[in-house]
Amino acid sequence: MARTTAELMKDRDRLMGPNVSTFYDEPIHFIKGSGVWLWDAEGRKYLDCYNNVPHVGHCNRRVVEAINWQASTLNIHTRYLHDGVLDYIERLTATMHASLDTAILTCTGSEANDIALRMAEAMTGKRGIIATDATYHGNTSLVSQLSQSNIPTVGFGLDQYFRFVEAPDSYRNPDPDGTRFAQQVAEQIAAHEATGIGFAALVVCPYFLNEGFPDNPDGWLQPAADIVRKAGGLLICDEVQSGFGRIGTHFWAHEKMGVVPDVVVLGKPMANGHPVGGVVANYDTLKEFRSGYRYFNTFGGNPVSCAAAMAVLEEIEDQNLLENAKHVGNHARNRLTRLQQKYDFIGDIRGSGLVFGAEMVLDRDTMEPASTFTDRVINAMRHNGIILSKLGRHKNTLKIRPPMPFSIENADLLFDTLDDVLGRTPMIQ
Amino acid sequence: MARTTAELMKDRDRLMGPNVSTFYDEPIHFIKGSGVWLWDAEGRKYLDCYNNVPHVGHCNRRVVEAINWQASTLNIHTRYLHDGVLDYIERLTATMHASLDTAILTCTGSEANDIALRMAEAMTGKRGIIATDATYHGNTSLVSQLSQSNIPTVGFGLDQYFRFVEAPDSYRNPDPDGTRFAQQVAEQIAAHEATGIGFAALVVCPYFLNEGFPDNPDGWLQPAADIVRKAGGLLICDEVQSGFGRIGTHFWAHEKMGVVPDVVVLGKPMANGHPVGGVVANYDTLKEFRSGYRYFNTFGGNPVSCAAAMAVLEEIEDQNLLENAKHVGNHARNRLTRLQQKYDFIGDIRGSGLVFGAEMVLDRDTMEPASTFTDRVINAMRHNGIILSKLGRHKNTLKIRPPMPFSIENADLLFDTLDDVLGRTPMIQ
Repeated sequence: MARTTAELMKDRDRLMGPNVSTFYDEPIHFIKGSGVWLWDAEGRKYLDCYNNVPHVGHCNRRVVEAINWQASTLNIHTRYLHDGVLDYIERLTATMHASLDTAILTCTGSEANDIALRMAEAMTGKRGIIATDATYHGNTSLVSQLSQSNIPTVGFGLDQYFRFVEAPDSYRNPDPDGTRFAQQVAEQIAAHEATGIGFAALVVCPYFLNEGFPDNPDGWLQPAADIVRKAGGLLICDEVQSGFGRIGTHFWAHEKMGVVPDVVVLGKPMANGHPVGGVVANYDTLKEFRSGYRYFNTFGGNPVSCAAAMAVLEEIEDQNLLENAKHVGNHARNRLTRLQQKYDFIGDIRGSGLVFGAEMVLDRDTMEPASTFTDRVINAMRHNGIILSKLGRHKNTLKIRPPMPFSIENADLLFDTLDDVLGRTPMIQ
Repeated sequence: MARTTAELMKDRDRLMGPNVSTFYDEPIHFIKGSGVWLWDAEGRKYLDCYNNVPHVGHCNRRVVEAINWQASTLNIHTRYLHDGVLDYIERLTATMHASLDTAILTCTGSEANDIALRMAEAMTGKRGIIATDATYHGNTSLVSQLSQSNIPTVGFGLDQYFRFVEAPDSYRNPDPDGTRFAQQVAEQIAAHEATGIGFAALVVCPYFLNEGFPDNPDGWLQPAADIVRKAGGLLICDEVQSGFGRIGTHFWAHEKMGVVPDVVVLGKPMANGHPVGGVVANYDTLKEFRSGYRYFNTFGGNPVSCAAAMAVLEEIEDQNLLENAKHVGNHARNRLTRLQQKYDFIGDIRGSGLVFGAEMVLDRDTMEPASTFTDRVINAMRHNGIILSKLGRHKNTLKIRPPMPFSIENADLLFDTLDDVLGRTPMIQ
């Protein structure tokens, strides 16, 4: 049935319960998507500068056709044999370091992180996990404990296993060679060992997207990785947001950070919105985990999911989307630089490839966050047909992370509109 | 690429790691499915008497078209508004008791059970869970602890929260009115309280499918439910296998068992193989859970998943699949009865609707399980073009659980073949 916005909001509360989050002061009712475009129920067109799940574009034809063909032909679990899951894992692992050679496919990044943490327990015999204090890795009982910004009051006491380090912040608190971060990791390793829990793993998004994608130079994670390995722990890189070419310079953000993870976690963009996640690791890690637990996932690795995920890899390659991310990303940063020269309240600009943004401040010297202003900008952009969001510890950083076929022309529309909106949004905090 | 069976097995180990389970001594390489039929890579046709995930039939046209249409139109997360998720929850909850009026949609039954257990923690402030000692509810760190038959050696110490009662067994250990089961639940509640962990929930498949679907009379769960409520705990019914009309007499197995659960968990057949799961509960339960944790699932409730799930509900109704399950199920049990009269090694026959089976014994008096024989029968049936499996504590019960459009003619082919196979499989244990 077709509901009005008011009816949608009322029925959401009634049928989905309270506290179901929406974007924007006036949530949008989308009914159609194509490429980098979305349309709402009134026929209004929006440029999507935010959604990374439709990685190769909303309703990408290759992905839709792959799903349709395979769903019409066979969909079944992996207790029977099928080429699809093997072809996909072969192609996926070929994009990574030779040591990352096996995978478990799941349906979500949450399931994948839940496995990754257990792999660390299996390999180390310990349970202490370290993450940053401004991250998000998923929603299972175990993985949800990693969210300091949305701490669950329920969770079977699993919080005891998690310790946190300061999220890197290249603007307010520079740590240009990553040694302070590594030192904090070392301190939390020691704290885990002191409590008797022991140290199992450091889990990070290698581009620290939820933390506000700090401007860390190449190789920045190496000191922390060294500390982790010396302590006998695993380095888990959650590439759910940062992977599949998003950052333009590399297919995986851990490459830019100069490390080879023990476990790579995948999700969101992996199959363009079809529910697929996964964990890539060394054969020995899988062996250790699987000898401790014969994990089986009914939907994980099914032929339809693998066909969708394969179509995403093919599309990235055929459409040169890694190159596009680099090219358009460079253009975007040039335009951001010009905006920063024009507007004093743009304190910092950051990003790589098709993830970029600007940090809004009340004063460039004090760096006081302009959080309310940022919120107004987001909402004004929405009313001007541009979909984006904000993030960071102070929610004062524009988060721009469009589908990968985003063009120079799309970027110009985004920045022309942003220039206009910034020029007429009152700076009131 | 097209691999031989030997190559598939080798590449599975290399790319998916060791200990990835397969069915049968000679695993099957399926390449095509339609309705109740499957075809292998050699073009051989099989009658699928086992797979419940393709609930309304392999590659069901309504489901495939729903997926294709919606995937071509829009796929996005629930932070924007969409009718699809609301229409689906409305229709789903309409099949249940009025108190079960809200839902959280996930991608798997594992994710759904993981939420259900946290709902119990949120509602009771306690963490003690009780289940049967022969069940399976999923694969997250928390939920995997419910599997006594495949106990994980990794799992962040969560085993402390789980206690088990004897799986009901109407054949070997009758408990016709459920009072012994209820008494055991009471004992484990007391044990949870004595350790200080406290009692949060009893979680059961109301038709005890993994346990071997004992022949419990209607209303059998009432005494246990009374004990659970008196102790302030929640009754969680995992309808992943037993729901959506499978048992023929009722849409949900908890109805047959005479109880209204606090939480209903859904998965596998919900969207015919598209990765969808869910939790249905009272608004107040969702409110309590969501006030403790603002759960969000990127893929959960997306328009494509909801379109697939809606098509399943529509197909069940339009094709009268509940009625079909009852009708064909009755015929199946008649044929099973005749086989039992013919073969002494069939100790017991059980089932309801389109889940049924026969327990194989070496001797009807001693009831000694004929596990090896059962395994031979399963493998012989596979070579005769019939897909089924075995289950139960002794792995000596045929597990027959076909897609719901299974016809009288299909049942006759199944039982004619089974009669033939039973007649010529040597009874050696």
